[in-house]
Amino acid sequence: MAAITDITADNPALAAQAAILARPVTIERQMADAVRMLAVDAVEAAKSGHPGMPMGMADVATTLWTRFHKFDAADPRWPDRDRFVLSAGHGSMLLYALLNLTGHAGMEIEQLRRFRQLHAHTAGHPEYGEHPAIETTTGPLGQGIATAVGMALAERMLAARFGKSLVDHRTWVIAGDGCLMEGISQEAITLAGHLKLEKLTVLWDDNSISIDGPTSLSTSEDQLRRFAAAGWAVKRIDGHDPAQIAAALSMAVRSKKPTLIACKTIIGFAAPTKAGTAAVHGAPLGTSEADATRQALGWTHPPFEVPEALRARWQQAGSRGATARRGWLKRLARHPQRAEFERVIAGRLPETFHEAMAALKAQLAESKPKLATRAANQKVLEALVPAVPELVGGSADLTGSNLTLVRNMGAVAPGSYGGRYIHYGIREHGMAAAMNGIVLHGGLIPYGGTFFCFSDYMRPAIRLAALMRIRVVHVLTHDSIGLGEDGPTHQPVEHLASLRAMPNVYVMRPADALETAECWELALRRSEGPSLLVLSRQALPALRGDSAENRCARGGYILAEADGPRQATLIATGSEVSIAMAARDALAAEGIKVAVVSLPCWELFAAQDEAWRAEVLGGAPRFGIEAAAPFGWERWLGPDGCFIGMTGFGASAPADDLYRHFGITAETVAAAVRKRVS
Amino acid sequence: MAAITDITADNPALAAQAAILARPVTIERQMADAVRMLAVDAVEAAKSGHPGMPMGMADVATTLWTRFHKFDAADPRWPDRDRFVLSAGHGSMLLYALLNLTGHAGMEIEQLRRFRQLHAHTAGHPEYGEHPAIETTTGPLGQGIATAVGMALAERMLAARFGKSLVDHRTWVIAGDGCLMEGISQEAITLAGHLKLEKLTVLWDDNSISIDGPTSLSTSEDQLRRFAAAGWAVKRIDGHDPAQIAAALSMAVRSKKPTLIACKTIIGFAAPTKAGTAAVHGAPLGTSEADATRQALGWTHPPFEVPEALRARWQQAGSRGATARRGWLKRLARHPQRAEFERVIAGRLPETFHEAMAALKAQLAESKPKLATRAANQKVLEALVPAVPELVGGSADLTGSNLTLVRNMGAVAPGSYGGRYIHYGIREHGMAAAMNGIVLHGGLIPYGGTFFCFSDYMRPAIRLAALMRIRVVHVLTHDSIGLGEDGPTHQPVEHLASLRAMPNVYVMRPADALETAECWELALRRSEGPSLLVLSRQALPALRGDSAENRCARGGYILAEADGPRQATLIATGSEVSIAMAARDALAAEGIKVAVVSLPCWELFAAQDEAWRAEVLGGAPRFGIEAAAPFGWERWLGPDGCFIGMTGFGASAPADDLYRHFGITAETVAAAVRKRVS
Repeated sequence: MAAITDITADNPALAAQAAILARPVTIERQMADAVRMLAVDAVEAAKSGHPGMPMGMADVATTLWTRFHKFDAADPRWPDRDRFVLSAGHGSMLLYALLNLTGHAGMEIEQLRRFRQLHAHTAGHPEYGEHPAIETTTGPLGQGIATAVGMALAERMLAARFGKSLVDHRTWVIAGDGCLMEGISQEAITLAGHLKLEKLTVLWDDNSISIDGPTSLSTSEDQLRRFAAAGWAVKRIDGHDPAQIAAALSMAVRSKKPTLIACKTIIGFAAPTKAGTAAVHGAPLGTSEADATRQALGWTHPPFEVPEALRARWQQAGSRGATARRGWLKRLARHPQRAEFERVIAGRLPETFHEAMAALKAQLAESKPKLATRAANQKVLEALVPAVPELVGGSADLTGSNLTLVRNMGAVAPGSYGGRYIHYGIREHGMAAAMNGIVLHGGLIPYGGTFFCFSDYMRPAIRLAALMRIRVVHVLTHDSIGLGEDGPTHQPVEHLASLRAMPNVYVMRPADALETAECWELALRRSEGPSLLVLSRQALPALRGDSAENRCARGGYILAEADGPRQATLIATGSEVSIAMAARDALAAEGIKVAVVSLPCWELFAAQDEAWRAEVLGGAPRFGIEAAAPFGWERWLGPDGCFIGMTGFGASAPADDLYRHFGITAETVAAAVRKRVS
Repeated sequence: MAAITDITADNPALAAQAAILARPVTIERQMADAVRMLAVDAVEAAKSGHPGMPMGMADVATTLWTRFHKFDAADPRWPDRDRFVLSAGHGSMLLYALLNLTGHAGMEIEQLRRFRQLHAHTAGHPEYGEHPAIETTTGPLGQGIATAVGMALAERMLAARFGKSLVDHRTWVIAGDGCLMEGISQEAITLAGHLKLEKLTVLWDDNSISIDGPTSLSTSEDQLRRFAAAGWAVKRIDGHDPAQIAAALSMAVRSKKPTLIACKTIIGFAAPTKAGTAAVHGAPLGTSEADATRQALGWTHPPFEVPEALRARWQQAGSRGATARRGWLKRLARHPQRAEFERVIAGRLPETFHEAMAALKAQLAESKPKLATRAANQKVLEALVPAVPELVGGSADLTGSNLTLVRNMGAVAPGSYGGRYIHYGIREHGMAAAMNGIVLHGGLIPYGGTFFCFSDYMRPAIRLAALMRIRVVHVLTHDSIGLGEDGPTHQPVEHLASLRAMPNVYVMRPADALETAECWELALRRSEGPSLLVLSRQALPALRGDSAENRCARGGYILAEADGPRQATLIATGSEVSIAMAARDALAAEGIKVAVVSLPCWELFAAQDEAWRAEVLGGAPRFGIEAAAPFGWERWLGPDGCFIGMTGFGASAPADDLYRHFGITAETVAAAVRKRVS
């Protein structure tokens, strides 16, 4: 078999490495070597991992963390800390080593020894929630940089609300070639450049190596020119020279644009034979190369040991921000918006939220408007936007279709961050990741809109939201063939199933305006994961006149009981619930008694106790109705259930024609029930 | 509610439009006006659609189609035609109008009158298969440009194989702002620039308008600089000036790099009040604006009518390529590789394929190797690559992990296209779309590798392959928690379900080396859609010694019948089949008789007749075992089935620890059966 590593047989990096190693050994070098060797040792102990990146970027990280990055190890959740995002998440040992050395509680050496082991906080890739100083989960490439854009934007937006005295921090990103090759990075950097997020800095680990070998195998992009085209300040430096690193970071701090610093590094720096090759990217060095690395660095300490003097220097760096934090706490104490700031940072909804929801639901129950659920969504936003100041919205250039913009939101614009509406552009993936970053930053609750079909573009970012258990709200309109003429490329069929299958996601498909309000209420009350509001393009009749109880809260409920012992149960979601109701009416006229169950959120329904679920679904034959693929419906329909929906992709035609063409009508449903009952 | 269109109230485009309209009316203008008005009329008739783009790009398209684009309307599938990709697929009427005017059979005016109606070939977005001159399905933004990169690459690769006398054509793309804002476009253009695909030209409809309003709401990118950074030649022109258009296209033809032509246009050109605004992007002009447009253009003809003289000019353009095609047919007739060329263009597999598969399967049945299925995949490729010359592979920078590269493939490199292996870089989405383009071009069968978890990044392109019914093979390794230490970001959980839910996709998860070979055989024999090979990182024992019949062909089968009347049936896929077999052994020792069913491909199994399926699954209690989410398993397990698998995300630890931690072991399975049976 062809060996990938052959390509690197002749290794020009070694001469460059020798020259760098020949430089006088400074305290900075030694501090960086502590990072390097902890990474090497942990990967050796785990027998898996990625030593190359931490070894290559240790010098950059050391200068950043000891002189620029604003943090206080004593309180990693200090709201005005700088954010540090390791977009190249496979280099997780870089972060763990930095947290350990700077004295973060919970990241003691034992954690590093247990790198990549079950129940350790030192997962293969940094996992949000494993340690309070891990700002976001990274690993799927490109996500970190795009999430960081959301963080940097949230900082600007909160600064516009609460002022510089409370909110004035930077966002630092370390990204690799992989992050910059992923398409999402383009969406992220063009959005950041457009919005002039000047406090965002990306440190690119420009090591010219990817897993397959030299990056020249697959790319010949001029990254500096690319970032400049996106409105970034750019600078190229020797990533092993602390003076150049510091100068570039100073430049970034002064810049009026987001800044890219291309740090030319040697991957696996100091490994005598493997440095500068793909061999050091994603595998342990091996004992002999690890020993040789120690020698090359003059690092005489055993694995996982760092001399006290060096530790002390690093601990100093860890408390560098303590004074700033104390000053900030004093400013917060006397700040007129203190209570509000603390509320939004804690993620607590305001009283006005509950009042607005109750009033809206009562009004919808009373007025029973016939509305597309996307239009109902707009009604909800009209109530929520004034009531929940931390709610910020946007759309991936489908504002007029998603109906995500309401009065007085104001648009976020370059250099102007007081608005509450973000024109994300045609960047679904970047939007979803930026929303993750906005939540992770704290202080804001983001929602964003696109067509449901294009949830496919955002899927990796939705997954991270689910994994991180963070409150993001996706407004996904045009949720079926009801979209009509745009045709099968725009008509979701499998999307409901594919997202219901994802752990920890509320997929909510409300049936009318009131259910839309109820689902929004649930989405905002949920602080433990993302919610997807899956909404119709077409108008739907109001189905309920009761608003006392949020009936969507249990995921499903009997919308209309049969007039007598049930002969069938029609189970539907969203726009098909009214079809089920029409079928029920038709059947009732013939004396056939059927109940209709609305099932807006499977995840919530599945979480109810089984007896109650059995009561709702009933013992009579069950019919599922959904303008989507049948996948997964067996769970609710049982072995002799009948599903009325899609069997393949949609088509281009007016929506009513399509519903008829695919046989998703009250008539079809009634006929199926009639046949079964007789 | 805030009106988006307010933003365009003051419309600077109208003055520019007046100046252009004041130019002398040439025959080119009139030909372009025919395109414009057909688009306007069809959108009016449909009462939906996107008139703005065809109206704006009609001049560019006219110059391209009458002077540069090589095609012959008499044979739209002529293999050496230029490819034309309307990446901005919402402007579908541009393409339909061009096909109609150039005299393509099957695109008569009746089709345009029935634009966006059921069963018409003129879908809302161009749909591959609806007309032979539609080269690819577009609409989801960015897909077209990325697919075109695959087409352009296929052209170079086939030219390297068959020579310039048979393969020498260009690929033209019309893309909008949306296409260029999508991240996938970055993956596409950097790959094209790196590989120096000089015969690829992108015509960017630079109209400064997106759906939300001016593009300045969301972007301020310098596209020319961006493309130049990616290694493209770039040129900015007035998109309403035929001389400039022709000069730029001539430049593109001479260029040694792929070329971007930024065509400055007025969206909805000639609409007297709405031109240059978002109002004309995605909605009919309305009767009065349509009438006013006619007047502005001096177009006196009723809807859908084009004067004979103009039609004749357009028909001439439609047969411009006839001479070239006749010359090509003569060259083909005497070409030494004629039979081979015709075979690969027809997509017929060679005899050597069947021989190689039979020999390999026999050898695997005989030798029963213990292999990870990703390693088995490599064995299959070692047999197939020599036997199937049209098979071309690649990986998104995970070659050594996916094991997708075998001996003597040779790498495709800038300016050198004789190899069979493509280093796609860390561009999963671009890879998947490029593979679509390679298939659509014809003559090659592509496979590409990445981690299964990152199928999420490729999903929109996989969906298009399914919708277009084209043969693409995805090699998706590291298919579960068996991936181990990299942790939950890299461990698929919901991916099997989410892709099984997608229509027309074979999701195949083989259990051992022999099943891997069988699945590959099915994937290549399938010409009607994409196949996903979902493969383990960890080694798996061989389970079968029989290779006479491809047992995966029915999607599932009884791998081991119970030794006596079945007390339980264990149904598993992939790496969990050997766990089921171990449980069966343990239970047999206690006298409990269970069968094991391997279910590598649900789609194929579902397509079998019900009686046979019932026989395989049996009447005894059923246990599903899969290291994945349970979603969808109810279908096979029935109401009292039991599922042993994942309930949420994975974790970072060695694989064996994870299997134990999540309780997916032979012991757990045996215990569950024991409990049930007793």
